[in-house]
Amino acid sequence: MSANPIQADPLSRAERDAVYKCIYNRRDVRGQFLPDAVPDEVLARILTASHHAPSVGFMQPWDFIVVRDPVVKRSVWEAFQTANREAADMFDDERRSIYRTLKLEGILEAPIGICITCDRKRSGPVVIGRTHQGEMDLYSAVCAVQNLWLAARAENIGVGWVSILRHRDIRAALGIPSNIWPIAYLCVGYVSHFFARPELETAGWLPRVPLREILWFDRWHNRSGTEALLDHVD
Amino acid sequence: MSANPIQADPLSRAERDAVYKCIYNRRDVRGQFLPDAVPDEVLARILTASHHAPSVGFMQPWDFIVVRDPVVKRSVWEAFQTANREAADMFDDERRSIYRTLKLEGILEAPIGICITCDRKRSGPVVIGRTHQGEMDLYSAVCAVQNLWLAARAENIGVGWVSILRHRDIRAALGIPSNIWPIAYLCVGYVSHFFARPELETAGWLPRVPLREILWFDRWHNRSGTEALLDHVD
Repeated sequence: MSANPIQADPLSRAERDAVYKCIYNRRDVRGQFLPDAVPDEVLARILTASHHAPSVGFMQPWDFIVVRDPVVKRSVWEAFQTANREAADMFDDERRSIYRTLKLEGILEAPIGICITCDRKRSGPVVIGRTHQGEMDLYSAVCAVQNLWLAARAENIGVGWVSILRHRDIRAALGIPSNIWPIAYLCVGYVSHFFARPELETAGWLPRVPLREILWFDRWHNRSGTEALLDHVD
Repeated sequence: MSANPIQADPLSRAERDAVYKCIYNRRDVRGQFLPDAVPDEVLARILTASHHAPSVGFMQPWDFIVVRDPVVKRSVWEAFQTANREAADMFDDERRSIYRTLKLEGILEAPIGICITCDRKRSGPVVIGRTHQGEMDLYSAVCAVQNLWLAARAENIGVGWVSILRHRDIRAALGIPSNIWPIAYLCVGYVSHFFARPELETAGWLPRVPLREILWFDRWHNRSGTEALLDHVD
C-alpha cells in the first residue's frame, strides 16, 4: 500500500476529504437493500479491510461467517422476531407505538449476512494490552466491525448491524460454540440509496447531541466555556 | 455533507481508494510523536468525525476528555508504569524479555491525550438495539474510537491506544465517576513517520493471520475450500 516498505505515505487533502465523506455518509441500513449480488472481489476487499483493524497485542481475535444460505438467514430472522417482540414490550406506551413502526433490520432482503465473532483465547492466555483491561479483545473485534462498515460505504454498499438478537439464538442459528463470542450480525448489500442522516434522528427518536456538551478538558466535567477548541465544534 | 438533504452522494473510485489507503496505513503509534501543536480546527474535525460514529439507538453514549495538562498526563503515565510492570511479570521468561524492549505508549510525548468514555444511562433505561445485547453501548463507544483513529490518520496524525492501565487508575487521573466507563485513552499528535506495518508484526511477536483461515460460510467452521470468495483473499 506504500511505495516505501518501512514508512507509509501521507494522505493528501483530497484523500482526507474522502475519508470524512465516508465517515459522515455511513448509515445503519435497514430498508434499502437491493437483491443485486455483491461480487466476490468486492466482498473480499471489504473483509480484508476489516481484517486490518487494530487488535490488542495484534491478536486478531475475529472470525467472519459469510451467510448466503436462505435457511440460515431465516433462522436469524426468526431470532430477531422473537427478540423484537420482547423489546417492544419494554418501552412505555407512547414509545412502543413509535418503536413498532420502525424498520430495524434487513436480514432477509440483504443478499449477504456477515457475523463477526471474537475468539478470546486466540494467541494464548496473556495478551499485550489485555492484561489490565480484559475487554480489549472484544473491543478489537468491534474495530473490525467499524472498518468493515466504512469499507462497505466506500464501495457504496450498505451495512446494518442487527443487535436485537439473543446471543444464544445467534449462536444456534450459526452453530457458534460457547467459547466464541458473537460480536455483530451485519446485513450487507447494495442499496437503492443512502439516507443523508440517521433514521432515528430523522424520525425524531433522539436528536444529535451537540459535541460541545460532551467535550471536557483535562478532567471529567471540566470546561470553562472559553476554551478555543469550542469555537470549532457544534 | 451531501448536495441532497435526503439522499447521500455515492463515493467515487478515487474516494474508495482513499478510504482503503487510510484503513491500511492506520497504525498504533507509540514512539514517533512530534511536539508540534495540533491546531484546534484539526482536532475539532477529528472529534466531530468520532462523534458521528454509529451508536445503538442513536444514544451517542460517549464523552471526550481532551488532555493537555502535563500534570494530568504525568498521572496517566504513572498509572501506565504500574500496570506495565505487572504486565511484564505475566509473560514467561522469553516473552518477558521481548516485552520489556517494546515501546508501548507515548503518553508524555504526544501533545494531546483523548479519553473516550461511555455513559450507559444516557437516553434512559431502554435503548433500541440494547434490549438483548447489553454491551452494545460500550461497542458504540469503540466505534467512536475507530472513527477518531481513521480521521486522525486522514489528517496524518498518529493515535496510540493505551490499554495497559487499571480502570481505577485512569478514573482517578481524570476524575471519571464510577457510573461512567472509560473506554480508551488515546495519545494523539503529529508524527515523524507512520510505519508501513504494525510494530508487533515487524517485531515478530505475532504474524498476520491469513484471512482465509478465519473465513467461514453460513455456519461456524464450515468451509469446503472451493468457495469462489477464497480466490480473492490471502
